[in-house]
Amino acid sequence: MAEHIHPIFERLVSRVERERFLAQRSCTVWLTGLSGSGKSTIAQHLERRLFDRGFFAQVLDGDNIRTGLNSNLGFSPEDRMENIRRIAEVARLYTQSGIIAICSFISPTRAMRAMARRIVGPADFVEVFVDTPLELCEQRDVKGLYARARRGEIKGFTGIDAPYEAPEQPEVHLPTEGHSVEESVEMLLQHLLPRIQPL
Amino acid sequence: MAEHIHPIFERLVSRVERERFLAQRSCTVWLTGLSGSGKSTIAQHLERRLFDRGFFAQVLDGDNIRTGLNSNLGFSPEDRMENIRRIAEVARLYTQSGIIAICSFISPTRAMRAMARRIVGPADFVEVFVDTPLELCEQRDVKGLYARARRGEIKGFTGIDAPYEAPEQPEVHLPTEGHSVEESVEMLLQHLLPRIQPL
Repeated sequence: MAEHIHPIFERLVSRVERERFLAQRSCTVWLTGLSGSGKSTIAQHLERRLFDRGFFAQVLDGDNIRTGLNSNLGFSPEDRMENIRRIAEVARLYTQSGIIAICSFISPTRAMRAMARRIVGPADFVEVFVDTPLELCEQRDVKGLYARARRGEIKGFTGIDAPYEAPEQPEVHLPTEGHSVEESVEMLLQHLLPRIQPL
Repeated sequence: MAEHIHPIFERLVSRVERERFLAQRSCTVWLTGLSGSGKSTIAQHLERRLFDRGFFAQVLDGDNIRTGLNSNLGFSPEDRMENIRRIAEVARLYTQSGIIAICSFISPTRAMRAMARRIVGPADFVEVFVDTPLELCEQRDVKGLYARARRGEIKGFTGIDAPYEAPEQPEVHLPTEGHSVEESVEMLLQHLLPRIQPL
């Protein structure tokens, strides 16, 4: 068997080859913000807009991560860090595969996001602060979680009895108040296009 | 914000759309076999052959998983199961993204592989038994692991002091003895082509 083995560097399909195949440059778009800030909606619309323009992206969010890879994690501080660590590792794999990973997770602390940035690689990490005021998130309360947190039925809920540390220097700052989803997605898209278009 | 939200089923990019974009049907190719059986070499050559034919695949193996996502796992029985569980979840994500996942892991027990099959989904799971006799693997001993296991420096080494449970009904049986890597890869490729070609 050994005599026919090609050198490893010829054999492995490189990230550059993959990016060329997909006619894009990959990165990880990391959306952080309060529960109900609109992160996942923006993530999904972004994925659709990118796809319709010929880009290949994948949303990673609670729906496909908490139910699968991270189904054995709870909500202790350790488990929350491990949750983000695994997500960042998967985002890294996708990015190395030449695919644009769009991650939508509250990721409330600077330490969490710094870890994610380190794992993905700083050059590939685009932090997006989905900046929606707490009052607005709580008013909407799509999933009824804020009401439950206020009644004390959920402990350690970000914005209520656990802090949200806003990003200090996100690559993209998206204030959503007074903007439609379309407007927010368009703003994000315009920021991303120069860095995902093939050279 | 809410008034502009499209129904979720219009928004999400479906697997079928992704497969159409990539001009392929996706699945998870799961290579199982002894250490030194040639799994990873076959996986890498397969990835290259597929890429050169216009398919988009990604190898998941120790090199990109044990160093990242599963770097916090050891070699206890529980950790070995968790290792395979996470890999299968990532393979599922890739497959759902429309990408052909090629997994190369010893995965020595039937229980492990049954779990992986369940997670990925039986319809998407292609189990490939890389069947190389223990004597041949031990003779080659590329990484010197068999020698160390024989000296008792590694405990629970598959084939030495831990069992390898050969698949009973793998989708593909690849006996490698007397075949070149190219021949084995070609055999596997011929099996895969009908199920990955677009309809």
